Amino acid sequence: MTSYKPGLHIIAEFTTAEINLLKNAEPCKQLFDNLIYSLDLSKVGEVYHNFENGGFTAVVCLTESHLSIHTWPEFNLATFDVFLSNFKQDNNDKVKSIYAETLAFFNGIEKSKQEIER
Amino acid sequence: MTSYKPGLHIIAEFTTAEINLLKNAEPCKQLFDNLIYSLDLSKVGEVYHNFENGGFTAVVCLTESHLSIHTWPEFNLATFDVFLSNFKQDNNDKVKSIYAETLAFFNGIEKSKQEIER
Repeated sequence: MTSYKPGLHIIAEFTTAEINLLKNAEPCKQLFDNLIYSLDLSKVGEVYHNFENGGFTAVVCLTESHLSIHTWPEFNLATFDVFLSNFKQDNNDKVKSIYAETLAFFNGIEKSKQEIER
Repeated sequence: MTSYKPGLHIIAEFTTAEINLLKNAEPCKQLFDNLIYSLDLSKVGEVYHNFENGGFTAVVCLTESHLSIHTWPEFNLATFDVFLSNFKQDNNDKVKSIYAETLAFFNGIEKSKQEIER
């Protein structure tokens, strides 16, 4: 058994007036892909699923763990989380950066955020 | 804007002596599929990725949100999270059930758990 600390997990909800961004997964996918590339992370798979009401849900699986977003255009809302393990290096700043960039991209107003040191 | 509360998110780490279960994604996938079916949830995609050292990482995308597990056999460790939205019905008991069943399946010793009402 071990005292190894896996890493930082940010869980947040934000509202936004940018309904088109909540209804269209493609710009968000572009954002996530750019962030993954620029932060030198490794994507090993992803699911983007569009709902009939126009929202979407996405999970991206990384060798460093995962990120997810679920959007509710009918509530101007998105729920977001990102978790990167620190197994090979300290990724805490990358976790914070991914969340900050996502919030900025959606022009979001943060409703709540939790930073969990796992 | 809204005061809609999305749902319950459980984040946990557990250790286990069942190294084979940490090294082999297939039994875990079977467990998750059974839970999703028996709890009447809807899977819309998934990623299971095996690491060279024998661990695996998985995210399962549900219409109700997602669940994930990342295993570190070298530390006898798994990190797990599950989030189900309450948009159509209260899924909080299902979140608790999925976590409890997963912990039991791995014969896990809980290191930490957070229940976040999002």
